[in-house]
Amino acid sequence: MISPEILYRYPFFGGLDDAQIRAIALIAQEETLATDVTIFHEGQRAESLYFLVDGGVALYYMGGGTILEKYKEGIPVDDINPGEPFGISALIEPYILTSTARSTKPCRVIRFEAEALKTLFMLDQQLAYKLALKAAKAAVERLSTTRMHLAAAWA
Amino acid sequence: MISPEILYRYPFFGGLDDAQIRAIALIAQEETLATDVTIFHEGQRAESLYFLVDGGVALYYMGGGTILEKYKEGIPVDDINPGEPFGISALIEPYILTSTARSTKPCRVIRFEAEALKTLFMLDQQLAYKLALKAAKAAVERLSTTRMHLAAAWA
Repeated sequence: MISPEILYRYPFFGGLDDAQIRAIALIAQEETLATDVTIFHEGQRAESLYFLVDGGVALYYMGGGTILEKYKEGIPVDDINPGEPFGISALIEPYILTSTARSTKPCRVIRFEAEALKTLFMLDQQLAYKLALKAAKAAVERLSTTRMHLAAAWA
Repeated sequence: MISPEILYRYPFFGGLDDAQIRAIALIAQEETLATDVTIFHEGQRAESLYFLVDGGVALYYMGGGTILEKYKEGIPVDDINPGEPFGISALIEPYILTSTARSTKPCRVIRFEAEALKTLFMLDQQLAYKLALKAAKAAVERLSTTRMHLAAAWA
């Protein structure tokens, strides 16, 4: 568990009431990562939702392993900054990661196990709704960024 | 309103119970569109969630109006097929459309006004959760498609 105080600082957790913040703080784990650590792999089951507190994370698209020679490490499709979630597929069917995440700096992250979140969601449908919307918002923002990359690539 | 029977046919509405299907059928409107009709514009407020029953719709990214001369009509970023939602920003903050939608064939669509949906969501938090997850799923699928385009463009 982590101190609920940490979560209150971030807009991502805005809209959650005190009981909901305490509930998710109880199941949260704080972790530190060195630079260039692969946090998860595209195509694997999304076991955890992550939230970046400090540092930087890059998301890479591996194209199901069919990426060209020159992008052996995947195509960088997004940068996660402090205050942003990643691994949102942990909340979204079919719960399969759509990118590979690697730390670009030493990081402090908060990790929520998907199974523990699902248990909370069964007890509190409103919390489930709020976090589903946050995940949807993050997906749409990521979509906008990727479209900008695409527009630049096609230019 | 439309007949609830129509909605039962589609996996998108799977997971909703009978009362929930009836509730959203009550606020739904069925509309037909000719080919090459602009259904909504990127950057505008998302007033309705759409669901494609028949026909085809393409989503174009206008890049906030900064798209090059050769993509005056926007960059085609996704194709919507029957059984798929579009205009999902109607469910997701900040409720601003992230692409422009145009019919590529004569279409039959079901339209749900965002305000009417929000009223339903206040009465039924579980329905809200289920549809938020469907919207998130659609956003992640769209993200995967866009990343594939990007990988191809960078090849």
